[in-house]
Amino acid sequence: MSNGLEIIKKSEISSARRGVLKTAHGDIQTPFFMPIATKGAVKTLSSADMEKLGAEILLSNTYHLYLKPGVDVMRAYGGLHKFMDWYGPILTDSGGYQVFSLSERRKITEEGVEFASHIDGSKHLLTPEKSMDIQQVLGSDIVMAFDECTPPDYDEKALNNSVDRTVRWAERSKKHFEQNIGSSNNSGAMLFGINQGATDEALRIKHAEDLKQIGFDGYAIGGLSVGEPFEEACKIVAALHPVLPADKPRYFMGGAKPHEIVEYVKRGVDMMDCVLPSRNARHGLLYRFVHDDLNRPDFYETIHITNSKYANDQTKLSSDDGELSRYTFGYLHHLFDVQEMLGYRLATLVNIKFYLQLMEKIRAAIESGAL
Amino acid sequence: MSNGLEIIKKSEISSARRGVLKTAHGDIQTPFFMPIATKGAVKTLSSADMEKLGAEILLSNTYHLYLKPGVDVMRAYGGLHKFMDWYGPILTDSGGYQVFSLSERRKITEEGVEFASHIDGSKHLLTPEKSMDIQQVLGSDIVMAFDECTPPDYDEKALNNSVDRTVRWAERSKKHFEQNIGSSNNSGAMLFGINQGATDEALRIKHAEDLKQIGFDGYAIGGLSVGEPFEEACKIVAALHPVLPADKPRYFMGGAKPHEIVEYVKRGVDMMDCVLPSRNARHGLLYRFVHDDLNRPDFYETIHITNSKYANDQTKLSSDDGELSRYTFGYLHHLFDVQEMLGYRLATLVNIKFYLQLMEKIRAAIESGAL
Repeated sequence: MSNGLEIIKKSEISSARRGVLKTAHGDIQTPFFMPIATKGAVKTLSSADMEKLGAEILLSNTYHLYLKPGVDVMRAYGGLHKFMDWYGPILTDSGGYQVFSLSERRKITEEGVEFASHIDGSKHLLTPEKSMDIQQVLGSDIVMAFDECTPPDYDEKALNNSVDRTVRWAERSKKHFEQNIGSSNNSGAMLFGINQGATDEALRIKHAEDLKQIGFDGYAIGGLSVGEPFEEACKIVAALHPVLPADKPRYFMGGAKPHEIVEYVKRGVDMMDCVLPSRNARHGLLYRFVHDDLNRPDFYETIHITNSKYANDQTKLSSDDGELSRYTFGYLHHLFDVQEMLGYRLATLVNIKFYLQLMEKIRAAIESGAL
Repeated sequence: MSNGLEIIKKSEISSARRGVLKTAHGDIQTPFFMPIATKGAVKTLSSADMEKLGAEILLSNTYHLYLKPGVDVMRAYGGLHKFMDWYGPILTDSGGYQVFSLSERRKITEEGVEFASHIDGSKHLLTPEKSMDIQQVLGSDIVMAFDECTPPDYDEKALNNSVDRTVRWAERSKKHFEQNIGSSNNSGAMLFGINQGATDEALRIKHAEDLKQIGFDGYAIGGLSVGEPFEEACKIVAALHPVLPADKPRYFMGGAKPHEIVEYVKRGVDMMDCVLPSRNARHGLLYRFVHDDLNRPDFYETIHITNSKYANDQTKLSSDDGELSRYTFGYLHHLFDVQEMLGYRLATLVNIKFYLQLMEKIRAAIESGAL
């Protein structure tokens, strides 16, 4: 079959799905989690580290890579895979999310978004076409359509206008993506549309119908995990379940805490990303499994390794055979205490590994009928 | 044989020696370089990394480890080897160098040195006996006697007084070391004396005779590489060559640049340490071999990876099979440009590897008669 989702099993007790997503750089078992290599590296880690951890896909940010190292370097390298020496699949965002979060430094028009670089203030225009161009130079396996991530403070009219524009941008994204795929750095790339509409269920559904009409290889649910109550996000995801095409992958963008991931999966989500495991790691917050029942939200705990009670804790960071099974909580506590970079690295390995293991447990639970 | 130096070959064209230093944690090929794990980690790297690089010994700092994590944690772990999960040899300094560099925060008496912690200002007294106690809890394989690293601004009288005191401290160090070795965390530890005397050749020789009289497992040349001309340091090392026992290892402390290491080896030095490879790495300065003739000081070059000319340089960081052979100068340039920690780590791997390869080349050159 061509690139896309093959569903192996559907849960009988929830909307969870277990499958395989075929991409131009290999298969990924679904549901999966994407570690974030914002600027071409998962913070503190290398591509070799990600392979050792068993990550099957990485997410990178178009906005950051567009500014540095820039499109010329990416073109010379033949894309991000070679630049990072990572030959598994890569998903890139459209750049929209970062550009919109620049707030006062950007201006939205029908054409696209004018913005000033956070690095040097230089002016740029990002359009659906330009976002496709950049992602196609990056050679991304999963390209995201250019959308507006609507802020929570939009009134009804602004929200409707924004979502309508996102539909038009989605059309332009698809047209440009298809026109140029032959000359891109990844002729097997897929294009995903992004559903918006804040917490307005009716608008979300209408938007999903519009995107479906255009037709995409996958559908992302954007604009959630931005401060709304978790229950609201769950409601939207559940409402979209019967609307989105059952045979296409669904990607919940920018979420979530471990127990939230389980809930999104139960509502039909196949793909997730999140900065929490790596960002929290750098602040000394580690995740650890407590028990195996994923249906109970207390299946994990968080550890603040900077707490002095860990100074002499000789428990290993992992019970596996990997590098983490060599070092102890006490050693990691010390590394944080004296601000050794190795500490941030080991903590990041612990947390990314936790998220990847969580996805393994989720897949096994769907297979066994427990989720 | 018991722990100590076995000389395999003496150069016929210089005072260089090729041998094996047997320690309680394994053999080390001499001459060797010791990467510095100041606070229990070579900055940005792990013990597993050091094994992969082929490092045979690490150096750690008594002063830093005494303050954090402290002797209680070290005692609970049974020493630094287990704490770091590093089971090769470890050399620890005496703490003297760091304490003396606190300048206004310390006071020297016959008993030892009173100092205020650079972390919290707490008052401590470091004596020869206390230094031995700490190093014996750390379980160091090579324990350094407590000495005063004389500053360059001492006048003749102060210098003589200091060196005389260092002799008395050396005696006290040895006595305490031997009394407690049975109850220490390393019953196979060796004790090295440290030669001082600034650039006063006669005083250096007299001090070396005094240390020899006391009798140590090895002899360090301290108090050089502190700002004096390189030629002065070479002169002192050469002058000590016929004085120091030929069958004991000699350790040049705190040096040096790659071409300087070659010169010290030619003057009979077996062991070296230096912060340059790791510190420079974090500032984006990389070492690279240019040709194989170590007798010419231009056998290597330095690269400033932050220079924009490397932005698109697809040369690999290494031609070997290791992880470094995956990434390019252009990628490393980018990582520095966007301040990703991975950049500091990769650069440190490059430089430590360079220093270790330099020592391999030195050993081969002694064996082949070229050095």
